[in-house]
Amino acid sequence: MRLVRYGRPGKEKPGLIDDEGKLRDLSGVIGDIDAAQLAPKALRKLEKLAQTSLPLVRGNPRFGVPVARVGKFIGIGLNYSDHAAEAGMPIPKEPIVFMKAISCLNGPDDPVMLPQGSKKTDWEVELGVVIGSRAQYVSEEEALKYVAGYTVVNDLSERSFQLERGPQWDKGKGCDTFGPVGPWLVTPEDIYDPQKLDLYLELNGKRMQTGSTETMIFTVAQIVSYLSKFMTLEPGDIIATGTPPGVGQGRKPQRFLKKGDKLRLGIAGLGEQQQEVIAWQKR
Amino acid sequence: MRLVRYGRPGKEKPGLIDDEGKLRDLSGVIGDIDAAQLAPKALRKLEKLAQTSLPLVRGNPRFGVPVARVGKFIGIGLNYSDHAAEAGMPIPKEPIVFMKAISCLNGPDDPVMLPQGSKKTDWEVELGVVIGSRAQYVSEEEALKYVAGYTVVNDLSERSFQLERGPQWDKGKGCDTFGPVGPWLVTPEDIYDPQKLDLYLELNGKRMQTGSTETMIFTVAQIVSYLSKFMTLEPGDIIATGTPPGVGQGRKPQRFLKKGDKLRLGIAGLGEQQQEVIAWQKR
Repeated sequence: MRLVRYGRPGKEKPGLIDDEGKLRDLSGVIGDIDAAQLAPKALRKLEKLAQTSLPLVRGNPRFGVPVARVGKFIGIGLNYSDHAAEAGMPIPKEPIVFMKAISCLNGPDDPVMLPQGSKKTDWEVELGVVIGSRAQYVSEEEALKYVAGYTVVNDLSERSFQLERGPQWDKGKGCDTFGPVGPWLVTPEDIYDPQKLDLYLELNGKRMQTGSTETMIFTVAQIVSYLSKFMTLEPGDIIATGTPPGVGQGRKPQRFLKKGDKLRLGIAGLGEQQQEVIAWQKR
Repeated sequence: MRLVRYGRPGKEKPGLIDDEGKLRDLSGVIGDIDAAQLAPKALRKLEKLAQTSLPLVRGNPRFGVPVARVGKFIGIGLNYSDHAAEAGMPIPKEPIVFMKAISCLNGPDDPVMLPQGSKKTDWEVELGVVIGSRAQYVSEEEALKYVAGYTVVNDLSERSFQLERGPQWDKGKGCDTFGPVGPWLVTPEDIYDPQKLDLYLELNGKRMQTGSTETMIFTVAQIVSYLSKFMTLEPGDIIATGTPPGVGQGRKPQRFLKKGDKLRLGIAGLGEQQQEVIAWQKR
């Protein structure tokens, strides 16, 4: 099942993408795609709906973040060995955990804003994991039961804010619009194996990142289990699980985002994001 | 004005502490102390209420976090030069920014739980700043206008999770119950100068931390202005502004929290917290 939230920012309605790829409205059935709706029982109920009974949505509305009222937006650093190498960092012995400010959440195709004074804004296509049930000290074997679904995340990062302004990364990870999520929340029964997903990112039509979740250092199950020992994971929390190689910082010469750049990124089975890079503006 | 939220966890009602120190119910006047209620206009309206017209609350109910639906819980690291020294860290050139998971928020007198496997859980009394209006690229001169009020935060930290499990601190800062906030949200007109507040913390009746916000490296105004250049600050966001010396990690020998320990901490004019330390338990 592919769940979406569509409509103007802050006014999104719940919907789903049917088997023919058409957008259908769910607002007659559920209020929103939020913590309550992400519970396994509630999702199973939605799956039983006859999709063709839902109203088709006309036109091509904007997509928002496919989860409402996200509590935590957690990032895992350097989780692909070849990306760690390009970043000039050692392969981590255990997951590196940082947090993205939830004020950075952005629709998948909304413009990405360069923070004022930004010189090193960079891209990172990542598998996003959405928590469906409260997880506390869960084992690796049980961990995937706590996952409501998967999505695409662009874990945008201002490298000079992240790495040259003190020891903590959060400063460069949570700038406004640095967290495009979506377009779809894909429930696990449609994902054969979260560790066999191809990721890609193009800048102005040129391929920059090509990877597979197969080369993650820590698997989704390991990450969920690990995090649940440091904090309670709540329904609606989103985890960005790290990026494969090909970020701007790792290129020779380095290439960072500038006004007018166009990003296209996606994950097989999880849909695609398209973003234009613009200057920061009040919104 | 001293605003509170009182009652059982998750069922808190808004209230205020009147000039005689008595708890009065605000639930007939406002829904909750949330983003909308923290706006300057809404706060001014509350201030005009005749406090004696509000119903007195009987008994001694529990206090919750004095702000509902907190979006971000941001921490500033090593913001007192003498604490930086005891931590063996250089004095930061600009604020160090980390994030506390919002799932760690805790009432001011609720028990503090030791995470499983914790060996180095430590205390940190801090001035908490609650944002009242959306702040983006605000100047130091204007910054305090964006503050709805002040409160007490215990920025609990598991030092081995924070410092010995990789380069990022968030892992040791957001464990369940690691964010007691309250008891009161005190609006700025009752605070003569946020940079002249005395802080203290006692462990089992013995004074551990004694400090004043006068010795902060970066003032509240500087911190709010600084953060607003890296992320949009939203009403209801809480900033923990760093701790004075006297944490367990800095003592010789080091002293960390164990089951049965009792903490008492407070800030002049902002009230006091009391916590018992217990083992982690499901809640």
